[in-house]
Amino acid sequence: MSKVYKVAVVGATGLVGSKMIEVLSEHKFPVGELVPVASERSAGKIINFNGKEFKVVTPAEGVAAKPDIALFSAGGETSRVWAPEFAKAGAVVIDNSSCWRMDPSVKLVVPEVNGDILDGKEGIIANPNCSTIQMLVPLWPLHKLYKIKRIVVSTYQSVTGSGMKGINQMTRERAGVDSTLVNGVPAYHYPIDKNIIPHIDSFADDDYTKEEWKMVNETHKIFNDYSIGVSATTVRVPVTGGHSESVNVEFEKEYDLKEVFEVLKKTPGVIVQDNPAENVYPMPLFAFGKDEVFVGRIRRDRSVKSGLNLWVVADNLRKGAATNAVQIAEQIIKLK
Amino acid sequence: MSKVYKVAVVGATGLVGSKMIEVLSEHKFPVGELVPVASERSAGKIINFNGKEFKVVTPAEGVAAKPDIALFSAGGETSRVWAPEFAKAGAVVIDNSSCWRMDPSVKLVVPEVNGDILDGKEGIIANPNCSTIQMLVPLWPLHKLYKIKRIVVSTYQSVTGSGMKGINQMTRERAGVDSTLVNGVPAYHYPIDKNIIPHIDSFADDDYTKEEWKMVNETHKIFNDYSIGVSATTVRVPVTGGHSESVNVEFEKEYDLKEVFEVLKKTPGVIVQDNPAENVYPMPLFAFGKDEVFVGRIRRDRSVKSGLNLWVVADNLRKGAATNAVQIAEQIIKLK
Repeated sequence: MSKVYKVAVVGATGLVGSKMIEVLSEHKFPVGELVPVASERSAGKIINFNGKEFKVVTPAEGVAAKPDIALFSAGGETSRVWAPEFAKAGAVVIDNSSCWRMDPSVKLVVPEVNGDILDGKEGIIANPNCSTIQMLVPLWPLHKLYKIKRIVVSTYQSVTGSGMKGINQMTRERAGVDSTLVNGVPAYHYPIDKNIIPHIDSFADDDYTKEEWKMVNETHKIFNDYSIGVSATTVRVPVTGGHSESVNVEFEKEYDLKEVFEVLKKTPGVIVQDNPAENVYPMPLFAFGKDEVFVGRIRRDRSVKSGLNLWVVADNLRKGAATNAVQIAEQIIKLK
Repeated sequence: MSKVYKVAVVGATGLVGSKMIEVLSEHKFPVGELVPVASERSAGKIINFNGKEFKVVTPAEGVAAKPDIALFSAGGETSRVWAPEFAKAGAVVIDNSSCWRMDPSVKLVVPEVNGDILDGKEGIIANPNCSTIQMLVPLWPLHKLYKIKRIVVSTYQSVTGSGMKGINQMTRERAGVDSTLVNGVPAYHYPIDKNIIPHIDSFADDDYTKEEWKMVNETHKIFNDYSIGVSATTVRVPVTGGHSESVNVEFEKEYDLKEVFEVLKKTPGVIVQDNPAENVYPMPLFAFGKDEVFVGRIRRDRSVKSGLNLWVVADNLRKGAATNAVQIAEQIIKLK
């Protein structure tokens, strides 16, 4: 008989939480018992998983259940307070919030990139920011070959990145209902439908947003290379299927474009969609619901030595959040 | 009595053509007689202008009317065939298509940048590409001060850039009508609603699109500086109010960020919208219907020496097309 695990999902009724439960099922993760955790408000609700019903419990009840693994996606404050409690009770916590990512004692993991730093003894493991994950999966094999000097990235981020609030705001705007308030809480400061908002997360002192800083700091930590220059502009677009990124890279070493294609084609977790003659390139519409990162528009940038342009799309709720967390869990149970 | 002009608008029933007529009226351009020109199919239609009615005529009838000025926006093929005919008949043609832009004998003009090259003796003058115009208006004063070494730009372009076809496709998709064909003609190869398409105009041999090459070549010609490196990724988004651009610039000389703000604030045609603390930044929703170029998210890029990030938004039908053409006409009549 193969081993099964008690798995808690904290934030089980949220957009990423429900996606985590979906991915656990799809990936046939060996869940013996699911412990769906949410706030007092949602406690008592029923979650269906693999044909069985599980009752949503409070965080305190979740800790008392002593899960082996706890996947967190319930906001930074819940993670700050409860992740250590779950870890103390013996769970390996995989946390999707930004709360623990830059803590020097916490590993920040994209399995395809630095999954080898896991040893199965972790208390809390941090899941990186969605826009960082999808950028780094294809850049990692190229960084190993040619060493990245600088990245200039502009993002086109789906409203699903703001959870149900973002989807609700766009749905209501499209239906002609009041545009900026959802249950009294605005998802964005402005209408998003047919608009573009160059502002994700709050502004830091230097007028970059925290989302932009995440792309800088998390790239350094995950690649364990603090010499890479990263300039990010993160932007919200009226899209639902996934995040897109226009990524411009400058390498230290010269590269061969054919080799770049070959390398990306055999990179785990990457699907190359690049055939301009047939109008083949990645788009959120087709990335939706997929676990992979889609890469296309791969072309030499002649405005700089060893420059390369890429267009990178992924379902931010999947590889950008739930899938990456479940993949970390899959690696952890191999180490146990 | 002040002088008035006979002004032809070729493509008068199209999206840019009607905007040209609107802007001529708003700007109180001294139109003595309007000559709206369109294809045989639209000939005979009535156009209202400043309270008077004008009948749409065919291109041949337009030439026969001997206009002083002809604003063209009827596609490259119409411009190729008819612009020289109008010019021969004595008109100054201001052409919004890409047909004549790179012709060495034709001036490519953004009035705020290189309006001084006009002498009033031109036959055909080319109006640059929408995404190029809005990028160059704010970059010009900075280029003069610090000399631009390299630009990395990613665009977020409105469906209005594809004319009525683009608007119709998005409208039909939102209404649940068949998504990719409008009157049998697809505006885009894929659905655009809630999607992002990293493909504008056709692909060139090197897998860049022609739209991307326009941003390179037109920047060189308008700035009359062929040393500037330009890397462009042009992208269609489900937006209607205007084009947005994430512009990353590397200067030759060091700059002072305060000076950049001061310079941009007094640049004609530029409005600085940059106050992160109050969530003030440019967005298509608010640029719509305006003649100016809006610039914000102005911040130092520390990943490179003398790097700067800008977020640039403009109504592509206005400053990106109709307004720029009318401004050229305004300059021409001052020289006559």
